Amino acid sequence: MKLKEELKIIVLDWPIEENIGVLNPEDAARNDISINDKLIVEVDGKKFTVYARISKKVEKGHLLIFKPLADMVGVKEGDEASITITDIFESLTYIRKKMRGKHLSKDEIYTIINDVVSGKLTEVEIAAFLLSQMFHGMSMSEIEYLTRAMVETGEVIDFERVVYDKHSLGGVPGNKVSLLIVPIVAAAGLFIPKTSSKAITSPSGTADTMSVLAPVEFTVDELKEVALKAGGCIVWGGSLHLAPADDIFINVERKLRIDPESQMLASIMAKKLAVKANYLVIDIPTGPGTKAPTVKDGRRLAHLFVELGERLDMQVQCGITYGGQPIGHSVGPALEAKEALEALHGNGPTSLLEKSTALAGLLLEMGGVAHRGHGKELAYKILNSGKALEKMRKIIEVQGGDPSIKPEDIPIGEHVIEIRAPCDGYVTHVNNSAITAIARAAGAPKEKGAGVVTPFKRGHKVNKGDVIMVIHAERATKLQQAYSLAQKLKPITIEGMLLYTYPEYV
Amino acid sequence: MKLKEELKIIVLDWPIEENIGVLNPEDAARNDISINDKLIVEVDGKKFTVYARISKKVEKGHLLIFKPLADMVGVKEGDEASITITDIFESLTYIRKKMRGKHLSKDEIYTIINDVVSGKLTEVEIAAFLLSQMFHGMSMSEIEYLTRAMVETGEVIDFERVVYDKHSLGGVPGNKVSLLIVPIVAAAGLFIPKTSSKAITSPSGTADTMSVLAPVEFTVDELKEVALKAGGCIVWGGSLHLAPADDIFINVERKLRIDPESQMLASIMAKKLAVKANYLVIDIPTGPGTKAPTVKDGRRLAHLFVELGERLDMQVQCGITYGGQPIGHSVGPALEAKEALEALHGNGPTSLLEKSTALAGLLLEMGGVAHRGHGKELAYKILNSGKALEKMRKIIEVQGGDPSIKPEDIPIGEHVIEIRAPCDGYVTHVNNSAITAIARAAGAPKEKGAGVVTPFKRGHKVNKGDVIMVIHAERATKLQQAYSLAQKLKPITIEGMLLYTYPEYV
Repeated sequence: MKLKEELKIIVLDWPIEENIGVLNPEDAARNDISINDKLIVEVDGKKFTVYARISKKVEKGHLLIFKPLADMVGVKEGDEASITITDIFESLTYIRKKMRGKHLSKDEIYTIINDVVSGKLTEVEIAAFLLSQMFHGMSMSEIEYLTRAMVETGEVIDFERVVYDKHSLGGVPGNKVSLLIVPIVAAAGLFIPKTSSKAITSPSGTADTMSVLAPVEFTVDELKEVALKAGGCIVWGGSLHLAPADDIFINVERKLRIDPESQMLASIMAKKLAVKANYLVIDIPTGPGTKAPTVKDGRRLAHLFVELGERLDMQVQCGITYGGQPIGHSVGPALEAKEALEALHGNGPTSLLEKSTALAGLLLEMGGVAHRGHGKELAYKILNSGKALEKMRKIIEVQGGDPSIKPEDIPIGEHVIEIRAPCDGYVTHVNNSAITAIARAAGAPKEKGAGVVTPFKRGHKVNKGDVIMVIHAERATKLQQAYSLAQKLKPITIEGMLLYTYPEYV
Repeated sequence: MKLKEELKIIVLDWPIEENIGVLNPEDAARNDISINDKLIVEVDGKKFTVYARISKKVEKGHLLIFKPLADMVGVKEGDEASITITDIFESLTYIRKKMRGKHLSKDEIYTIINDVVSGKLTEVEIAAFLLSQMFHGMSMSEIEYLTRAMVETGEVIDFERVVYDKHSLGGVPGNKVSLLIVPIVAAAGLFIPKTSSKAITSPSGTADTMSVLAPVEFTVDELKEVALKAGGCIVWGGSLHLAPADDIFINVERKLRIDPESQMLASIMAKKLAVKANYLVIDIPTGPGTKAPTVKDGRRLAHLFVELGERLDMQVQCGITYGGQPIGHSVGPALEAKEALEALHGNGPTSLLEKSTALAGLLLEMGGVAHRGHGKELAYKILNSGKALEKMRKIIEVQGGDPSIKPEDIPIGEHVIEIRAPCDGYVTHVNNSAITAIARAAGAPKEKGAGVVTPFKRGHKVNKGDVIMVIHAERATKLQQAYSLAQKLKPITIEGMLLYTYPEYV
């Protein structure tokens, strides 16, 4: 029911993101509005939803909202708003349908995603949608519509070139492979405009790591220019408004610590479809704490990605990789950037080189610049020839960084603690989630110089007194916190050593 | 992690119920607090949870919260608060366990309910708990623990007498049976301290209807005095803090329009266990729009209530009743109070008398004052003898109303529209949810004089021009809205008449 009168917007400058609109008690009573009623507010064709609150502090004829909402929807103090009281959204009807395990049509999914992006659905309703996906799953058609709806409600970037791309499912710390894959692939003449994310729960996202070497935040137009000039790039996708529903879903998923498979598939592929990727390599790490604990899980996921890719006219190749311990030796933005740059200089750890060239090789084969089964070989060749380093310098330069940067130029956190092996033995286990927690406690990713170095990996022989872990931090207090955590979590297991002897580390 | 410094509370007087705490950016940065981090705030042993927000408008060393939260937890401006940053609640771990369909232990359920009641869990997390119940169900042991946990986190009232009680599952408008059952049962010498609810989605809850005749809001001590003095009462349970988790669950259930069976069982029985009911009759209406669409559904629910009752040492008897149309002729607080009072005077509609005496009879049999199979007969006798009316007058008196009130004294909304039959025929259908919507549009339950009267029920013969519905309202605008809705919803179907001829009603 639409209110006859219009209300004047008041904007209150407090950082309250909730969709709340406060009315005068008389306005509320006259229009039969109660607390928590859902109101659709329309200002100059812009529509948004608020939950009603009632307070005498708001003058009659006004609707008070908070600044974050006003900024998001683009309304300002004094704007005239027409108000409609709504009882139930169409999309809640469809979410309830999914709750009952029914199949959703294309239109129904589009309606839901439109309402997610326009802020009409509340977190509780979005949680219900995600949990219903988790409980009942989604068919491949539903996932396809979900993907397309997520793309169409955001920005789509057309580079007008054949686009190669790469995505890692995550869960493995130290996974700086994009900083090798992008220059290798671009050096081979394939266009790879990589958009990446900042860390949410990990010690460093690809965008965090790259930001040590060059700026990563661009507008869509700047991104196009940068990527076309260098033949590739490594930028932050967060400000580009690609499939913006994803951020909204992630926010709710984090609160419940859930990650429904159908939504994960749609979210990843939507980000890639939004840059019109033609060829995509997906890195599926397997191991505890990853999205695919076993190789069998990895194969099943790979099959789903390939099938979804076919429906979206995207050629997808999955690499199931070993994710049981960190990639390379270093974890944290600056440490990882340094290790990646060393690898491009021809001096990288085996696990990093192997994984990067294998995945880059898949793209080289898809692009027809290497014969089937010879991509990795070519990737190694490009890396060893220095062409990948040269291309990386070009990318750093066009993104606005210093192309002559050397690994030793990168500042690392000055507060350092070394942890030593208490006995002779073999490293039998390196715990990913413990390494992640310690690096984050040290300050990563916010403090770029913070992180962890693990000189020995699983299977290595260590002698009593060898340094098995170095923690770097920018602040002494953080170092101490990370160290306490390391003593508690015992991230590295050495064969034959009892866990409770770890306090002797000091 | 606990912050070293304490923060001074600032209370901002805006009606924002959300659990939000705003900090100065420097305090946040120094303690590594990000937006949406969950903080446990402790003031003089009182603990509550807020989600972090960050704003320069809050001075260093302060934590700003909003008034509704401050009032709820009982803290005030200037209080010193110690802050703990928390990562994940134990109870979220258990909710996630239920999400995966696992069985929860007693301790796990108690932890969840404690956190629900103390405000530690957010709506999203509570929604996840309710949806998990909906998707996976709960065993009878889990439901028992849920019930007990809900009771133990609230007030428990010990009347130190054998307690008889009655509950209706709802979904049927006009269900004023408690206003007959309580005085009948109390007149037979059985103690029946009935706590009831106000309407949330119906046109009138029992507490709304009773409030037309006498005050219904009491403290626990007052309630004890009132109930013991009259041998029974009909009061509002909402202010008594019985099983307070229920209100929190209902709030989320309404937003998603869900009503998980296990939670419903626990919530109803918790309210009854909290008044230490020994004998309980549950009215299970069957029909479209009720919780038991078919008699078979009703039997299944009845079985669950009886089993749960056994576990809680409560003797439960269920009455499966016909809920296909309103009970009696009138819907809305004053109209229903009037009809109930008329029935106590010996002048009630058959459906109301039949249902009330049948359910009262079950309690009389359970209490041993009637032989098995003869309870209804005795209930009728008590009603016809005037003893029920006499007891009702006593109840009205001790609750603070006017015991001499007559049906004709009750003020009914003065704005009236009659709707007439457009043709001869039989009433083949009276639509519960349409009647509910029209009565609410007319102003019920807020405006007590508003409501709907339907002189003819299903199966009755009507002639063209007979009044088949009267709408009462306190305000002309509301009457018009209710009338428009009636024209649209066509709540009463007369055989042989095509629905689209209804506009001719005018």
